[in-house]
Amino acid sequence: MLHLYDLNHAVVVIIDVLRATSTIATALYNGAKCVIPVDSVAKCIELGRQIDGITAGERDGMIAEGLEHGNSPFEYSRDFINNRTLVLTTTNGTKLLHMALERGAGQIVTGSFPNLSAVCDFLIAQNQPVVLGCAAWKDRINLEDMLFAGAVIHRVKNHFSINCDSAQIAESVYLEAEKDLYAFMKAKDASHYHRLMGFGLEKDIRYCLTPDVANVLPLYENGKLIVL
Amino acid sequence: MLHLYDLNHAVVVIIDVLRATSTIATALYNGAKCVIPVDSVAKCIELGRQIDGITAGERDGMIAEGLEHGNSPFEYSRDFINNRTLVLTTTNGTKLLHMALERGAGQIVTGSFPNLSAVCDFLIAQNQPVVLGCAAWKDRINLEDMLFAGAVIHRVKNHFSINCDSAQIAESVYLEAEKDLYAFMKAKDASHYHRLMGFGLEKDIRYCLTPDVANVLPLYENGKLIVL
Repeated sequence: MLHLYDLNHAVVVIIDVLRATSTIATALYNGAKCVIPVDSVAKCIELGRQIDGITAGERDGMIAEGLEHGNSPFEYSRDFINNRTLVLTTTNGTKLLHMALERGAGQIVTGSFPNLSAVCDFLIAQNQPVVLGCAAWKDRINLEDMLFAGAVIHRVKNHFSINCDSAQIAESVYLEAEKDLYAFMKAKDASHYHRLMGFGLEKDIRYCLTPDVANVLPLYENGKLIVL
Repeated sequence: MLHLYDLNHAVVVIIDVLRATSTIATALYNGAKCVIPVDSVAKCIELGRQIDGITAGERDGMIAEGLEHGNSPFEYSRDFINNRTLVLTTTNGTKLLHMALERGAGQIVTGSFPNLSAVCDFLIAQNQPVVLGCAAWKDRINLEDMLFAGAVIHRVKNHFSINCDSAQIAESVYLEAEKDLYAFMKAKDASHYHRLMGFGLEKDIRYCLTPDVANVLPLYENGKLIVL
Protein backbone atom coordinates (compact mmCIF):
# COMPACT_ATOMS: atom_id res chain seq x y z
CA MET A 1 0.00 0.00 0.00
CA LEU A 2 3.07 2.18 -0.32
CA HIS A 3 1.47 4.11 -3.18
CA LEU A 4 -0.95 5.68 -0.72
CA TYR A 5 1.70 7.66 1.09
CA ASP A 6 3.85 10.66 0.25
CA LEU A 7 7.40 9.41 0.56
CA ASN A 8 9.29 12.62 -0.09
CA HIS A 9 11.64 13.23 2.80
CA ALA A 10 10.13 10.21 4.51
CA VAL A 11 12.09 7.43 6.16
CA VAL A 12 10.73 4.16 4.79
CA VAL A 13 11.24 1.06 6.90
CA ILE A 14 11.12 -2.13 4.86
CA ILE A 15 9.70 -4.93 6.99
CA ASP A 16 9.81 -8.63 6.18
CA VAL A 17 10.26 -10.24 9.58
CA LEU A 18 10.06 -13.87 8.40
CA ARG A 19 12.83 -13.87 7.40
CA ALA A 20 14.47 -11.46 4.95
CA THR A 21 14.92 -8.38 7.12
CA SER A 22 15.83 -10.43 10.21
CA THR A 23 18.52 -12.16 8.18
CA ILE A 24 19.81 -8.86 6.75
CA ALA A 25 20.21 -7.43 10.26
CA THR A 26 21.92 -10.62 11.40
CA ALA A 27 24.41 -10.74 8.52
CA LEU A 28 25.38 -7.10 9.04
CA TYR A 29 25.54 -7.52 12.81
CA ASN A 30 27.92 -10.42 12.27
CA GLY A 31 30.26 -8.32 10.18
CA ALA A 32 29.07 -8.60 6.58
CA LYS A 33 30.54 -5.74 4.51
CA CYS A 34 27.12 -5.15 2.99
CA VAL A 35 23.97 -6.89 1.82
CA ILE A 36 22.87 -6.35 -1.77
CA PRO A 37 19.19 -7.08 -2.30
CA VAL A 38 18.23 -8.19 -5.81
CA ASP A 39 14.88 -9.19 -7.20
CA SER A 40 15.73 -12.32 -9.17
CA VAL A 41 17.77 -15.48 -8.89
CA ALA A 42 19.49 -14.69 -12.21
CA LYS A 43 20.69 -11.30 -10.98
CA CYS A 44 21.82 -12.87 -7.75
CA ILE A 45 23.97 -15.43 -9.56
CA GLU A 46 25.42 -12.84 -11.93
CA LEU A 47 26.26 -10.30 -9.26
CA GLY A 48 27.61 -12.97 -6.93
CA ARG A 49 30.12 -13.96 -9.62
CA GLN A 50 31.14 -10.40 -10.44
CA ILE A 51 31.95 -9.37 -6.90
CA ASP A 52 32.74 -12.73 -5.35
CA GLY A 53 29.75 -12.42 -3.06
CA ILE A 54 27.79 -15.03 -1.19
CA THR A 55 24.59 -15.72 -3.07
CA ALA A 56 21.44 -16.50 -1.15
CA GLY A 57 17.73 -16.83 -1.58
CA GLU A 58 14.86 -19.26 -1.42
CA ARG A 59 11.88 -20.13 -3.51
CA ASP A 60 9.12 -22.19 -1.96
CA GLY A 61 11.16 -22.87 1.15
CA MET A 62 14.21 -24.31 -0.66
CA ILE A 63 17.54 -22.73 -1.59
CA ALA A 64 16.91 -21.48 -5.11
CA GLU A 65 18.68 -23.38 -7.88
CA GLY A 66 22.08 -21.87 -8.61
CA LEU A 67 22.41 -20.12 -5.24
CA GLU A 68 24.56 -21.19 -2.32
CA HIS A 69 22.56 -20.28 0.76
CA GLY A 70 19.08 -19.83 2.12
CA ASN A 71 17.10 -17.29 4.11
CA SER A 72 17.84 -18.51 7.60
CA PRO A 73 19.60 -16.04 9.91
CA PHE A 74 21.43 -19.02 11.40
CA GLU A 75 23.39 -19.45 8.19
CA TYR A 76 25.11 -16.11 8.72
CA SER A 77 27.33 -16.52 11.76
CA ARG A 78 30.31 -14.21 12.24
CA ASP A 79 32.73 -17.00 11.27
CA PHE A 80 31.04 -17.29 7.95
CA ILE A 81 29.90 -13.82 6.96
CA ASN A 82 32.44 -11.48 8.50
CA ASN A 83 33.90 -9.15 5.87
CA ARG A 84 31.98 -10.81 3.06
CA THR A 85 29.25 -9.41 0.81
CA LEU A 86 25.86 -11.10 0.84
CA VAL A 87 23.82 -10.94 -2.36
CA LEU A 88 20.28 -11.79 -1.30
CA THR A 89 17.31 -12.29 -3.54
CA THR A 90 13.94 -11.78 -1.92
CA THR A 91 10.70 -11.20 -3.74
CA ASN A 92 8.48 -8.97 -1.67
CA GLY A 93 11.07 -7.09 0.35
CA THR A 94 13.12 -6.14 -2.69
CA LYS A 95 10.03 -5.15 -4.66
CA LEU A 96 8.96 -2.88 -1.84
CA LEU A 97 12.42 -1.39 -1.58
CA HIS A 98 12.50 -0.56 -5.28
CA MET A 99 9.02 0.92 -5.05
CA ALA A 100 10.17 3.15 -2.23
CA LEU A 101 13.19 4.24 -4.26
CA GLU A 102 11.11 5.07 -7.32
CA ARG A 103 8.72 7.10 -5.25
CA GLY A 104 11.50 9.25 -3.88
CA ALA A 105 11.86 8.00 -0.32
CA GLY A 106 14.25 10.17 1.66
CA GLN A 107 15.95 7.24 3.39
CA ILE A 108 15.36 3.54 3.34
CA VAL A 109 16.21 1.18 6.18
CA THR A 110 15.20 -2.39 6.99
CA GLY A 111 13.48 -3.43 10.18
CA SER A 112 12.89 -6.63 12.13
CA PHE A 113 12.63 -7.63 15.76
CA PRO A 114 16.35 -8.48 15.91
CA ASN A 115 17.12 -4.79 15.23
CA LEU A 116 14.03 -3.17 16.74
CA SER A 117 15.81 -0.68 18.99
CA ALA A 118 18.22 0.44 16.28
CA VAL A 119 15.26 1.22 14.01
CA CYS A 120 13.35 3.09 16.72
CA ASP A 121 16.37 5.13 17.79
CA PHE A 122 17.04 6.10 14.18
CA LEU A 123 13.44 7.17 13.53
CA ILE A 124 13.37 9.34 16.63
CA ALA A 125 16.74 10.90 15.80
CA GLN A 126 15.82 11.67 12.18
CA ASN A 127 12.54 13.32 13.13
CA GLN A 128 11.13 12.99 9.61
CA PRO A 129 7.85 11.44 8.44
CA VAL A 130 7.96 7.66 8.72
CA VAL A 131 6.33 5.02 6.53
CA LEU A 132 6.41 1.46 7.83
CA GLY A 133 6.29 -0.75 4.75
CA CYS A 134 5.18 -4.32 5.43
CA ALA A 135 6.35 -6.57 2.64
CA ALA A 136 3.45 -8.99 2.93
CA TRP A 137 3.18 -12.03 0.73
CA LYS A 138 1.20 -11.99 -2.48
CA ASP A 139 0.03 -8.56 -1.32
CA ARG A 140 -1.63 -9.86 1.81
CA ILE A 141 -0.72 -8.37 5.13
CA ASN A 142 0.83 -10.83 7.51
CA LEU A 143 0.72 -10.97 11.24
CA GLU A 144 4.44 -10.78 12.08
CA ASP A 145 5.10 -7.70 9.96
CA MET A 146 2.11 -5.98 11.51
CA LEU A 147 3.40 -6.96 14.97
CA PHE A 148 6.76 -5.42 14.20
CA ALA A 149 5.14 -2.24 12.85
CA GLY A 150 3.08 -2.13 16.04
CA ALA A 151 6.19 -2.54 18.19
CA VAL A 152 7.85 0.39 16.42
CA ILE A 153 4.73 2.55 16.72
CA HIS A 154 4.41 1.75 20.40
CA ARG A 155 7.99 2.82 21.04
CA VAL A 156 8.18 5.96 18.90
CA LYS A 157 4.63 7.31 18.92
CA ASN A 158 5.25 10.05 21.45
CA HIS A 159 7.61 11.63 18.95
CA PHE A 160 5.18 11.59 16.02
CA SER A 161 1.56 12.15 15.12
CA ILE A 162 -0.27 9.12 13.73
CA ASN A 163 -2.40 9.67 10.66
CA CYS A 164 -3.54 6.23 9.62
CA ASP A 165 -5.88 3.77 11.33
CA SER A 166 -3.64 0.89 10.31
CA ALA A 167 -0.99 2.21 12.73
CA GLN A 168 -3.51 2.10 15.57
CA ILE A 169 -4.54 -1.40 14.54
CA ALA A 170 -0.90 -2.56 14.45
CA GLU A 171 -0.17 -1.15 17.89
CA SER A 172 -3.31 -2.75 19.36
CA VAL A 173 -2.41 -6.15 18.02
CA TYR A 174 1.17 -5.78 19.18
CA LEU A 175 0.13 -4.88 22.72
CA GLU A 176 -2.02 -7.99 22.84
CA ALA A 177 0.86 -10.14 21.57
CA GLU A 178 3.75 -8.44 23.33
CA LYS A 179 4.14 -10.78 26.27
CA ASP A 180 4.85 -13.78 24.07
CA LEU A 181 5.06 -13.08 20.35
CA TYR A 182 5.74 -16.69 19.46
CA ALA A 183 2.74 -17.97 21.43
CA PHE A 184 0.57 -15.35 19.75
CA MET A 185 1.72 -16.37 16.26
CA LYS A 186 1.04 -19.96 17.17
CA ALA A 187 -2.37 -19.29 18.72
CA LYS A 188 -3.42 -17.37 15.62
CA ASP A 189 -1.89 -19.97 13.32
CA ALA A 190 -0.38 -17.09 11.33
CA SER A 191 0.16 -18.00 7.69
CA HIS A 192 3.98 -17.77 7.82
CA TYR A 193 4.13 -19.49 11.18
CA HIS A 194 2.21 -22.32 9.60
CA ARG A 195 4.36 -22.40 6.47
CA LEU A 196 7.72 -22.25 8.23
CA MET A 197 6.72 -24.76 10.89
CA GLY A 198 5.98 -27.09 7.97
CA PHE A 199 9.66 -26.76 7.04
CA GLY A 200 10.75 -27.47 10.64
CA LEU A 201 11.85 -23.90 11.23
CA GLU A 202 10.58 -23.19 14.74
CA LYS A 203 14.04 -22.02 15.76
CA ASP A 204 14.07 -19.46 12.95
CA ILE A 205 10.66 -18.16 13.91
CA ARG A 206 11.63 -17.78 17.57
CA TYR A 207 14.83 -15.95 16.64
CA CYS A 208 13.08 -13.63 14.19
CA LEU A 209 10.64 -12.61 16.94
CA THR A 210 13.39 -11.79 19.46
CA PRO A 211 14.14 -8.08 19.94
CA ASP A 212 17.62 -6.65 19.64
CA VAL A 213 19.68 -9.78 19.11
CA ALA A 214 21.26 -8.21 16.01
CA ASN A 215 20.83 -4.58 16.84
CA VAL A 216 22.28 -2.68 13.89
CA LEU A 217 20.65 -0.33 11.42
CA PRO A 218 20.79 -1.47 7.77
CA LEU A 219 20.67 1.67 5.64
CA TYR A 220 20.20 1.52 1.87
CA GLU A 221 22.77 3.50 -0.12
CA ASN A 222 23.77 3.10 -3.75
CA GLY A 223 22.21 -0.30 -4.11
CA LYS A 224 23.61 -1.72 -0.89
CA LEU A 225 22.47 -2.15 2.66
CA ILE A 226 25.25 -1.09 5.00
CA VAL A 227 25.43 -0.55 8.74
CA LEU A 228 24.85 3.08 9.57
CA MET B 1 -7.91 -5.86 -1.60
CA LEU B 2 -10.85 -7.71 -3.09
CA HIS B 3 -8.76 -8.66 -6.12
CA LEU B 4 -6.71 -10.99 -3.95
CA TYR B 5 -9.52 -13.41 -3.32
CA ASP B 6 -11.41 -15.90 -5.41
CA LEU B 7 -15.00 -14.75 -5.30
CA ASN B 8 -16.65 -17.53 -7.24
CA HIS B 9 -19.41 -19.01 -5.10
CA ALA B 10 -18.30 -16.71 -2.30
CA VAL B 11 -20.57 -14.58 -0.19
CA VAL B 12 -19.12 -11.07 -0.21
CA VAL B 13 -20.05 -8.80 2.69
CA ILE B 14 -19.69 -5.12 1.81
CA ILE B 15 -18.71 -3.19 4.93
CA ASP B 16 -18.81 0.58 5.33
CA VAL B 17 -19.83 1.02 8.94
CA LEU B 18 -19.57 4.83 9.05
CA ARG B 19 -22.14 5.23 7.67
CA ALA B 20 -23.29 3.76 4.35
CA THR B 21 -24.01 0.16 5.30
CA SER B 22 -25.44 1.12 8.70
CA THR B 23 -27.84 3.48 6.92
CA ILE B 24 -28.78 0.86 4.33
CA ALA B 25 -29.69 -1.62 7.08
CA THR B 26 -31.67 1.07 8.89
CA ALA B 27 -33.67 2.17 5.85
CA LEU B 28 -34.58 -1.43 5.02
CA TYR B 29 -35.35 -2.25 8.64
CA ASN B 30 -37.72 0.73 8.68
CA GLY B 31 -39.63 -0.53 5.67
CA ALA B 32 -37.89 0.86 2.60
CA LYS B 33 -38.92 -1.15 -0.48
CA CYS B 34 -35.29 -1.27 -1.54
CA VAL B 35 -32.05 0.67 -1.57
CA ILE B 36 -30.37 1.29 -4.92
CA PRO B 37 -26.66 2.07 -4.58
CA VAL B 38 -25.20 4.25 -7.35
CA ASP B 39 -21.71 5.57 -7.79
CA SER B 40 -22.34 9.19 -8.77
CA VAL B 41 -24.51 12.13 -7.81
CA ALA B 42 -25.66 12.51 -11.43
CA LYS B 43 -26.92 8.91 -11.58
CA CYS B 44 -28.59 9.37 -8.21
CA ILE B 45 -30.52 12.43 -9.44
CA GLU B 46 -31.51 10.78 -12.71
CA LEU B 47 -32.67 7.52 -11.18
CA GLY B 48 -34.45 9.33 -8.36
CA ARG B 49 -36.52 11.19 -10.96
CA GLN B 50 -37.29 8.11 -13.03
CA ILE B 51 -38.60 6.00 -10.18
CA ASP B 52 -39.77 8.71 -7.79
CA GLY B 53 -37.14 7.60 -5.28
CA ILE B 54 -35.61 9.44 -2.37
CA THR B 55 -32.16 10.63 -3.40
CA ALA B 56 -29.40 10.68 -0.84
CA GLY B 57 -25.68 11.06 -0.55
CA GLU B 58 -22.95 13.25 0.84
CA ARG B 59 -19.72 14.70 -0.34
CA ASP B 60 -17.30 16.11 2.20
CA GLY B 61 -19.83 15.79 5.00
CA MET B 62 -22.61 17.78 3.28
CA ILE B 63 -25.69 16.61 1.37
CA ALA B 64 -24.47 16.57 -2.22
CA GLU B 65 -25.85 19.30 -4.46
CA GLY B 66 -29.02 18.16 -6.20
CA LEU B 67 -29.83 15.44 -3.64
CA GLU B 68 -32.44 15.55 -0.92
CA HIS B 69 -30.94 13.66 1.98
CA GLY B 70 -27.70 12.73 3.65
CA ASN B 71 -25.96 9.64 5.01
CA SER B 72 -27.28 9.66 8.54
CA PRO B 73 -29.29 6.63 9.62
CA PHE B 74 -31.45 8.99 11.68
CA GLU B 75 -32.88 10.48 8.50
CA TYR B 76 -34.56 7.18 7.65
CA SER B 77 -37.27 6.66 10.25
CA ARG B 78 -40.20 4.38 9.48
CA ASP B 79 -42.53 7.38 9.09
CA PHE B 80 -40.33 8.70 6.34
CA ILE B 81 -38.93 5.70 4.49
CA ASN B 82 -41.62 3.03 4.78
CA ASN B 83 -42.57 1.71 1.35
CA ARG B 84 -40.26 4.16 -0.45
CA THR B 85 -37.19 3.49 -2.55
CA LEU B 86 -33.90 5.00 -1.44
CA VAL B 87 -31.37 5.85 -4.14
CA LEU B 88 -28.08 6.22 -2.31
CA THR B 89 -24.79 7.37 -3.76
CA THR B 90 -21.70 6.28 -1.88
CA THR B 91 -18.21 6.24 -3.23
CA ASN B 92 -16.26 3.40 -1.66
CA GLY B 93 -19.10 1.04 -0.80
CA THR B 94 -20.60 1.16 -4.29
CA LYS B 95 -17.20 0.79 -5.92
CA LEU B 96 -16.52 -2.30 -3.85
CA LEU B 97 -19.95 -3.72 -4.64
CA HIS B 98 -19.39 -3.30 -8.39
CA MET B 99 -15.95 -4.86 -8.08
CA ALA B 100 -17.48 -7.87 -6.33
CA LEU B 101 -20.11 -8.16 -9.08
CA GLU B 102 -17.53 -8.01 -11.87
CA ARG B 103 -15.45 -10.66 -10.18
CA GLY B 104 -18.34 -13.06 -10.05
CA ALA B 105 -19.30 -13.03 -6.39
CA GLY B 106 -21.90 -15.66 -5.61
CA GLN B 107 -23.95 -13.42 -3.34
CA ILE B 108 -23.47 -9.89 -2.11
CA VAL B 109 -24.85 -8.56 1.17
CA THR B 110 -24.07 -5.47 3.23
CA GLY B 111 -22.92 -5.55 6.81
CA SER B 112 -22.73 -3.15 9.75
CA PHE B 113 -23.10 -3.40 13.51
CA PRO B 114 -26.82 -2.55 13.31
CA ASN B 115 -27.35 -5.79 11.38
CA LEU B 116 -24.50 -7.88 12.78
CA SER B 117 -26.54 -10.93 13.79
CA ALA B 118 -28.44 -11.06 10.51
CA VAL B 119 -25.13 -11.14 8.62
CA CYS B 120 -23.63 -13.83 10.86
CA ASP B 121 -26.73 -16.03 10.72
CA PHE B 122 -26.77 -15.77 6.93
CA LEU B 123 -23.09 -16.66 6.57
CA ILE B 124 -23.45 -19.70 8.77
CA ALA B 125 -26.60 -20.84 6.96
CA GLN B 126 -25.08 -20.43 3.49
CA ASN B 127 -21.96 -22.38 4.38
CA GLN B 128 -20.01 -20.97 1.41
CA PRO B 129 -16.63 -19.21 1.34
CA VAL B 130 -16.90 -15.70 2.79
CA VAL B 131 -15.02 -12.55 1.86
CA LEU B 132 -15.41 -9.58 4.20
CA GLY B 133 -14.89 -6.50 2.04
CA CYS B 134 -14.01 -3.37 4.00
CA ALA B 135 -14.78 -0.30 1.92
CA ALA B 136 -12.02 1.81 3.44
CA TRP B 137 -11.50 5.40 2.38
CA LYS B 138 -9.03 6.33 -0.32
CA ASP B 139 -7.95 2.69 -0.11
CA ARG B 140 -6.84 2.87 3.50
CA ILE B 141 -8.24 0.42 5.96
CA ASN B 142 -10.23 2.03 8.72
CA LEU B 143 -10.72 0.96 12.28
CA GLU B 144 -14.52 0.61 12.40
CA ASP B 145 -14.73 -1.62 9.32
CA MET B 146 -11.98 -3.82 10.69
CA LEU B 147 -13.83 -3.97 14.03
CA PHE B 148 -16.99 -5.11 12.29
CA ALA B 149 -15.09 -7.72 10.28
CA GLY B 150 -13.56 -8.88 13.56
CA ALA B 151 -16.98 -9.13 15.19
CA VAL B 152 -18.24 -11.30 12.34
CA ILE B 153 -15.15 -13.52 12.42
CA HIS B 154 -15.45 -13.94 16.16
CA ARG B 155 -19.05 -15.08 15.84
CA VAL B 156 -18.80 -17.35 12.81
CA LYS B 157 -15.26 -18.73 12.98
CA ASN B 158 -16.21 -22.11 14.38
CA HIS B 159 -18.10 -22.76 11.15
CA PHE B 160 -15.22 -21.85 8.82
CA SER B 161 -11.49 -22.17 8.36
CA ILE B 162 -9.58 -18.90 8.34
CA ASN B 163 -6.97 -18.48 5.62
CA CYS B 164 -5.79 -14.92 5.94
CA ASP B 165 -3.81 -13.19 8.70
CA SER B 166 -5.95 -10.08 8.31
CA ALA B 167 -8.90 -12.04 9.71
CA GLN B 168 -6.86 -12.91 12.82
CA ILE B 169 -5.78 -9.29 13.13
CA ALA B 170 -9.38 -8.08 12.83
CA GLU B 171 -10.62 -10.49 15.49
CA SER B 172 -7.80 -9.53 17.87
CA VAL B 173 -8.57 -5.84 17.57
CA TYR B 174 -12.28 -6.49 17.94
CA LEU B 175 -11.79 -8.50 21.13
CA GLU B 176 -9.78 -5.66 22.59
CA ALA B 177 -12.48 -3.14 21.64
CA GLU B 178 -15.57 -5.24 22.25
CA LYS B 179 -16.49 -3.96 25.69
CA ASP B 180 -16.95 -0.40 24.50
CA LEU B 181 -16.52 0.14 20.78
CA TYR B 182 -17.17 3.85 20.98
CA ALA B 183 -14.57 4.37 23.70
CA PHE B 184 -12.08 2.38 21.65
CA MET B 185 -12.68 4.48 18.53
CA LYS B 186 -12.26 7.60 20.64
CA ALA B 187 -9.12 6.39 22.42
CA LYS B 188 -7.52 5.52 19.08
CA ASP B 189 -8.76 8.76 17.52
CA ALA B 190 -9.83 6.71 14.50
CA SER B 191 -9.81 8.75 11.30
CA HIS B 192 -13.58 8.60 10.73
CA TYR B 193 -14.32 9.14 14.38
CA HIS B 194 -12.26 12.29 14.14
CA ARG B 195 -13.90 13.42 10.90
CA LEU B 196 -17.51 12.77 11.95
CA MET B 197 -17.02 14.30 15.40
CA GLY B 198 -15.90 17.41 13.55
CA PHE B 199 -19.36 17.49 11.96
CA GLY B 200 -21.03 17.02 15.37
CA LEU B 201 -22.11 13.46 14.62
CA GLU B 202 -21.38 11.63 17.87
CA LYS B 203 -24.93 10.28 17.89
CA ASP B 204 -24.43 8.76 14.44
CA ILE B 205 -21.17 7.14 15.48
CA ARG B 206 -22.71 5.63 18.61
CA TYR B 207 -25.66 4.27 16.64
CA CYS B 208 -23.46 2.80 13.90
CA LEU B 209 -21.46 0.91 16.53
CA THR B 210 -24.57 -0.62 18.17
CA PRO B 211 -25.26 -4.26 17.31
CA ASP B 212 -28.60 -5.44 16.02
CA VAL B 213 -30.66 -2.26 16.18
CA ALA B 214 -31.67 -2.71 12.53
CA ASN B 215 -31.26 -6.43 12.22
CA VAL B 216 -32.18 -7.24 8.61
CA LEU B 217 -30.09 -8.71 5.82
CA PRO B 218 -29.69 -6.46 2.76
CA LEU B 219 -29.12 -8.75 -0.23
CA TYR B 220 -28.07 -7.39 -3.62
CA GLU B 221 -30.23 -8.57 -6.52
CA ASN B 222 -30.64 -7.00 -9.94
CA GLY B 223 -29.16 -3.70 -8.95
CA LYS B 224 -31.10 -3.36 -5.71
CA LEU B 225 -30.54 -4.12 -2.07
CA ILE B 226 -33.62 -5.82 -0.67
CA VAL B 227 -34.38 -7.53 2.62
CA LEU B 228 -33.85 -11.23 2.32
